[in-house]
Amino acid sequence: MRENVQTILGCNASYQEAEICVFGAPFDSTTSFRPGTRFASQHIRNDSWGLETYSPYQDLDLEDAHIFDCGDLELCFGNTETALSRIEEMTAEILGDGKIPCMIGGEHLVTLGSVRAAAKRYPELCILHFDAHTDLRKDYLGEPLSHATVIRRCHDLVGDGRIYQFGIRSGLREEFLWGAEHGFLHKFDFAGLEEAVAAIGDRPVYFTIDLDVLDPSVFPGTGTPEPGGVSFMDLLSAVLTAAKLNIVGMDVNELCPVYDPGGASTAVACKVLRELLLAVYFEKKERK
Amino acid sequence: MRENVQTILGCNASYQEAEICVFGAPFDSTTSFRPGTRFASQHIRNDSWGLETYSPYQDLDLEDAHIFDCGDLELCFGNTETALSRIEEMTAEILGDGKIPCMIGGEHLVTLGSVRAAAKRYPELCILHFDAHTDLRKDYLGEPLSHATVIRRCHDLVGDGRIYQFGIRSGLREEFLWGAEHGFLHKFDFAGLEEAVAAIGDRPVYFTIDLDVLDPSVFPGTGTPEPGGVSFMDLLSAVLTAAKLNIVGMDVNELCPVYDPGGASTAVACKVLRELLLAVYFEKKERK
Amino acid sequence: MRENVQTILGCNASYQEAEICVFGAPFDSTTSFRPGTRFASQHIRNDSWGLETYSPYQDLDLEDAHIFDCGDLELCFGNTETALSRIEEMTAEILGDGKIPCMIGGEHLVTLGSVRAAAKRYPELCILHFDAHTDLRKDYLGEPLSHATVIRRCHDLVGDGRIYQFGIRSGLREEFLWGAEHGFLHKFDFAGLEEAVAAIGDRPVYFTIDLDVLDPSVFPGTGTPEPGGVSFMDLLSAVLTAAKLNIVGMDVNELCPVYDPGGASTAVACKVLRELLLAVYFEKKERK
Amino acid sequence: MRENVQTILGCNASYQEAEICVFGAPFDSTTSFRPGTRFASQHIRNDSWGLETYSPYQDLDLEDAHIFDCGDLELCFGNTETALSRIEEMTAEILGDGKIPCMIGGEHLVTLGSVRAAAKRYPELCILHFDAHTDLRKDYLGEPLSHATVIRRCHDLVGDGRIYQFGIRSGLREEFLWGAEHGFLHKFDFAGLEEAVAAIGDRPVYFTIDLDVLDPSVFPGTGTPEPGGVSFMDLLSAVLTAAKLNIVGMDVNELCPVYDPGGASTAVACKVLRELLLAVYFEKKERK
Amino acid sequence: MRENVQTILGCNASYQEAEICVFGAPFDSTTSFRPGTRFASQHIRNDSWGLETYSPYQDLDLEDAHIFDCGDLELCFGNTETALSRIEEMTAEILGDGKIPCMIGGEHLVTLGSVRAAAKRYPELCILHFDAHTDLRKDYLGEPLSHATVIRRCHDLVGDGRIYQFGIRSGLREEFLWGAEHGFLHKFDFAGLEEAVAAIGDRPVYFTIDLDVLDPSVFPGTGTPEPGGVSFMDLLSAVLTAAKLNIVGMDVNELCPVYDPGGASTAVACKVLRELLLAVYFEKKERK
Amino acid sequence: MRENVQTILGCNASYQEAEICVFGAPFDSTTSFRPGTRFASQHIRNDSWGLETYSPYQDLDLEDAHIFDCGDLELCFGNTETALSRIEEMTAEILGDGKIPCMIGGEHLVTLGSVRAAAKRYPELCILHFDAHTDLRKDYLGEPLSHATVIRRCHDLVGDGRIYQFGIRSGLREEFLWGAEHGFLHKFDFAGLEEAVAAIGDRPVYFTIDLDVLDPSVFPGTGTPEPGGVSFMDLLSAVLTAAKLNIVGMDVNELCPVYDPGGASTAVACKVLRELLLAVYFEKKERK
Repeated sequence: MRENVQTILGCNASYQEAEICVFGAPFDSTTSFRPGTRFASQHIRNDSWGLETYSPYQDLDLEDAHIFDCGDLELCFGNTETALSRIEEMTAEILGDGKIPCMIGGEHLVTLGSVRAAAKRYPELCILHFDAHTDLRKDYLGEPLSHATVIRRCHDLVGDGRIYQFGIRSGLREEFLWGAEHGFLHKFDFAGLEEAVAAIGDRPVYFTIDLDVLDPSVFPGTGTPEPGGVSFMDLLSAVLTAAKLNIVGMDVNELCPVYDPGGASTAVACKVLRELLLAVYFEKKERK
Repeated sequence: MRENVQTILGCNASYQEAEICVFGAPFDSTTSFRPGTRFASQHIRNDSWGLETYSPYQDLDLEDAHIFDCGDLELCFGNTETALSRIEEMTAEILGDGKIPCMIGGEHLVTLGSVRAAAKRYPELCILHFDAHTDLRKDYLGEPLSHATVIRRCHDLVGDGRIYQFGIRSGLREEFLWGAEHGFLHKFDFAGLEEAVAAIGDRPVYFTIDLDVLDPSVFPGTGTPEPGGVSFMDLLSAVLTAAKLNIVGMDVNELCPVYDPGGASTAVACKVLRELLLAVYFEKKERK
Repeated sequence: MRENVQTILGCNASYQEAEICVFGAPFDSTTSFRPGTRFASQHIRNDSWGLETYSPYQDLDLEDAHIFDCGDLELCFGNTETALSRIEEMTAEILGDGKIPCMIGGEHLVTLGSVRAAAKRYPELCILHFDAHTDLRKDYLGEPLSHATVIRRCHDLVGDGRIYQFGIRSGLREEFLWGAEHGFLHKFDFAGLEEAVAAIGDRPVYFTIDLDVLDPSVFPGTGTPEPGGVSFMDLLSAVLTAAKLNIVGMDVNELCPVYDPGGASTAVACKVLRELLLAVYFEKKERK
Repeated sequence: MRENVQTILGCNASYQEAEICVFGAPFDSTTSFRPGTRFASQHIRNDSWGLETYSPYQDLDLEDAHIFDCGDLELCFGNTETALSRIEEMTAEILGDGKIPCMIGGEHLVTLGSVRAAAKRYPELCILHFDAHTDLRKDYLGEPLSHATVIRRCHDLVGDGRIYQFGIRSGLREEFLWGAEHGFLHKFDFAGLEEAVAAIGDRPVYFTIDLDVLDPSVFPGTGTPEPGGVSFMDLLSAVLTAAKLNIVGMDVNELCPVYDPGGASTAVACKVLRELLLAVYFEKKERK
Repeated sequence: MRENVQTILGCNASYQEAEICVFGAPFDSTTSFRPGTRFASQHIRNDSWGLETYSPYQDLDLEDAHIFDCGDLELCFGNTETALSRIEEMTAEILGDGKIPCMIGGEHLVTLGSVRAAAKRYPELCILHFDAHTDLRKDYLGEPLSHATVIRRCHDLVGDGRIYQFGIRSGLREEFLWGAEHGFLHKFDFAGLEEAVAAIGDRPVYFTIDLDVLDPSVFPGTGTPEPGGVSFMDLLSAVLTAAKLNIVGMDVNELCPVYDPGGASTAVACKVLRELLLAVYFEKKERK
Repeated sequence: MRENVQTILGCNASYQEAEICVFGAPFDSTTSFRPGTRFASQHIRNDSWGLETYSPYQDLDLEDAHIFDCGDLELCFGNTETALSRIEEMTAEILGDGKIPCMIGGEHLVTLGSVRAAAKRYPELCILHFDAHTDLRKDYLGEPLSHATVIRRCHDLVGDGRIYQFGIRSGLREEFLWGAEHGFLHKFDFAGLEEAVAAIGDRPVYFTIDLDVLDPSVFPGTGTPEPGGVSFMDLLSAVLTAAKLNIVGMDVNELCPVYDPGGASTAVACKVLRELLLAVYFEKKERK
């Protein structure tokens, strides 16, 4: 008697058969400027059916993939550590079942929860990071857990030489210096991505996309829009390149629906997610 | 592995145990002014969890009721008859299982689908109608099936003396005359509702609420706001009075989320729905 | 070959046969807080067809009235005196043809243009003024022509004892004192309106409605919303009372569509206009 | 006495002298995702005067062209066939008077009405189609008349080898295959347009522009935004190329003002329309 | 050389001469539904100059009062305890200097910071609480510090019989029971306020206004609108009654500007604040 | 006791030590289409702290610069000449103190006030103008002072050969002709800017940026969006080129926050301003 239980477009497999598991992490308590990313996964579910399951870019169809939508975690606003633990637990469970987790943020700090689980399981874990912002602060107003420190906290877990950042165009001068010293921080665009992919080789990779890497013309619906970003086609091309890596976990973050009254940014998020899921799913399948 | 499948607040029973079944009817193809009510049930699901399950007005709690959320029908835009048939079929199935259907529109025409099913099952069916608009046109630009003709079409099914209208403040002069002649049309407010309830007695009732009966100050988020309507407390009081009737089916219509950017109208719709479900559910239980 | 040239609802008479002439005065250059009322007449034209021509309040129908929509004046932004002269000229022409002008502002200063014409033609002119604001400043930042001075400027033309103000709840202390001394300033609501109508008697009246006299719950779409105002039914009742006067000119001002994203305030403005036009038209007809 | 009757910018000719006739087709009943394009022609009229009549791209001026604005058709929502017949009738009348119709949608299905008239008059008719979507479904949820089937329905009229599609980036896999087999479907951009123009030669052409061919960064205000589209300058250049064809009818569709709160998409629609009208008008003139 | 440093309307005294000190507490990290109240004080500063300094209700003028605007605290999002400590510190300093603090939230939890300081200074402290919500949960998803627990946490500090709640219409059943048992919880409106004022007598009072006590028709711009609330005039009257108490600290909370696109809710907040400041300031002055 | 008095990001120097002084000119009374730029400086102050002070493009930091934020002028709406005089006076004072004024409009007419002061002080003054619009009309509806005439009025002061315009894509045909004859008008983009910089040489330059030179995809939040504009990176590059000139005054105009509901255009304005201030400040420092 129940029709149309809402899942993200084409994510209709059972958990058992699924090779990728999508889940929402509605959390934005440390957002320092404009909160609201907690509603991203809900809006992506609502609007994703405005999209076709077929990608003419990759000539692949979500109807041919096995992906499960776990729904949204219930996270406590105002208690960061509790929220991160719940995310880590969920990611660990999916990884433990031999599947790839794909988290939908929320603010970028949610990535830390997933990376904790992934780094435990894969000691060689590398991180590929697309973003407008460095996210490399040591702390934010004294607080170590923040959307502005998340990649620095990931570095605490994986160490030097494991983090590859692209598209970065905002941060403190010291963050840019630190990023270049301890990892690979490429400013403004995706030049050098092929080389990074080669350097990473077959090591396991956590791939985190902060959608504000896109120019605000393409993706205005985010808390801290940063002019000067990449185009949708730039991002699509970079995602397809990155998908050749041995991706073990991934996330897509920072859609803020309240600043997307017309829905165009949500449409962008849905399409990035579709292309990412297709590329990673069929790459994995080929490898097998 | 699945958390938080979205249902309308507190509607967590199984179909078997449920005594009321809620379903969405996302259809607005005949809307003549501003469309968009198709998104009402989705927004009510999204936002209903901002509401408590407990009503301090009735001292009753949805957690103590057995209500099932069927999800949304998939209705074809642009083919009115097909959509109405699907609604009729759904309502008939719920009625056939001895449960009370509660439909969430959509435009007001969806009521016709449910009333068709209810009138077949209950030849004595009366209709209680709260609305700003008469909805009594013979046709609209030649078309007999329209949100502006829906109560007239219901009259085709149930005949004279069965329809009780309250809150009406907009229509053609001939609609007001026709309504007074063939039924009971009360203008502007709910005066006389107690008398109508007494007159209806124990006959089976389909109760249809067009939320634009509320003043636009309370409920601006609708396609055709009509100044001069009732307050939320007026409507709440009228709903509690109406719930004493032998209600066999009901609906709540005409929330148009696209004209509710701040969400206050959706909050009103959620609360009207909560109070309606509680009042009807516990009235039924008492009768047993 | 031309269909649907947009006019205000039901204003379909020819100029010759019309007894009331509506025109828009899209001007807001002196607005001190939030501009945008220049778009009011356009939005009223766009949305007025969402309204019925029949009033169940008065049991009268615009289809039975002869009203002409002159369209909008082209007014120069940034040059106040030029704009006022154009308005005066238009009003004088309509008055000269024995018809009643009904202007749609624009900011409230546009009233001065019409009152200039009316006061020239009717030396005994009284002014009935519904508003949240006194509009009685001597000047605004040194400038004598301003939305905040408009009724003071009208007083320059008609003198003491001719201006009746209702609903006023915002202004400088000295404005309240001045208003009470030189005219009739009634705070907050319409108490005393019947007495004012009696006192005015058969003298010619210019009737100006600043829609912000309504509470912002009813009419949020205005430049300077003032909580504590009257309800729609209060205003409707006051308009029907005022219509018994010998009205020779009138206007409806201060709808600011840019602050009415959902359209409910425009719906209120349309309905106030419909009721005003009906009441004045049929009162005049009866007098003849 | 009437000033400023609103027409689309610069379309001030009489019907007799006009060589192009613009009319609005406010219809969106089959829209499957987000309706609202019915308000496009109204908003284009409202906002087009924010635009100059002179094009620095073409060094041409609408003031030197003879174009008539017919206003908007009154179409019945909820009855698709009735609406299409009215559009066909209007187009046939304009074509019969030796003029070029330029329709402003509305959803894309309105094109079918015009193409019916054009295909009757010009048995050799070709169709040039700019869009993000294939619009080649056989039916949509069983319904043959839908915005998602419109080009397939046009193919029913004109047959293989007559339809040229550009910019397409969304659809079912089978639509892409069908499109390539039965016509000329070019994905993503306008590469190959010059060749298509050459291939069409002097055959009569109906030119239909779904504005969602533009990237959502340029044109977010549409029901189904599809990231990855062309830029404004790409579209402008393609329009100027296409205008060299023997265009006998044309339309511009899918602006959805409700998703354009800031008005930038409406500004884009106005400018595309200006450039299209100028290019087609002066090309025709030169041919004579 | 500096003009127009933005302060809240009429709060132009120096700190030394001021008797009331206003400050913003931009914090909303524990908000469970829709965040954004962090921007309230900024918007109140921006829009308060659209308001007059003179109150016709009280015949008092802010120009005659000595009030200082301290600006906004810089609070760390994501670390609740740090934020509360900073608020407590600020309040303690103002209290220590013999002045009355008036805090502008932020979410309602900020009240706890101020109440901590006030309860330390005034062991007999009573709390007067206007709100739609009980805010009496023991914890929220296990977290003791939350907007949904704030009054319960205040009770931890002041104990039974000291808290007076009015306007409450949402909460768990157990909260309503607990509130009635341990304090004075009045549902729905302000009936009984005079008696409460008498019962409190001359004990020191912290007065906290959650603006969502207002009906959403009046004040839609808040995170969790609750239909069925009081009118602006109801609240104004209750504020004037409450101001007769020995108020030692106060706050106004839960304006969420992101859900107030047209600004009417911000206007309501500004006016409530003006009337509150005037009433408390001149009451204090009279007492001296 | 006062925290966080709001200034534009990083403009924290004292007036004495400052080498650049920023001030707001909130004026938009002559705007002919959609007003609202008066709120630009306020929104830039509000949102600029969402931006870092460090520029990765220039590797420079506002924390190392001495810039003062003067706040906003109080300008009289409705009296253009009074407003321009106040702007001229402010600019003259800053210039007289050996500092560089940087004005934030407001509509583009405000530039005339500053250019008057600059042209008096620097008889050799050149003007560099980035804009979508020519702004070269002789008058607008008879009025010489208008946003549409501002560069023509500047030409009245500085004469032929001194004005360099880039990015222009909208105007009357005669404006384009006049511009080419009397100055240097480059259409559509910044080609030729290097040559213009060389031609200007070391003459003093007033640099005025109308932000609508940007494409509406990047900057929709303006009164008259003009499709076909430059990208953010194009503008950034052009600003860095222009900053090599001997700039003595500058302004950034035409952000209209009311058409920027999501804030992305304000973010663009803030970033353009940051890059402009950094480039001009450090260029000046180097010259010394």
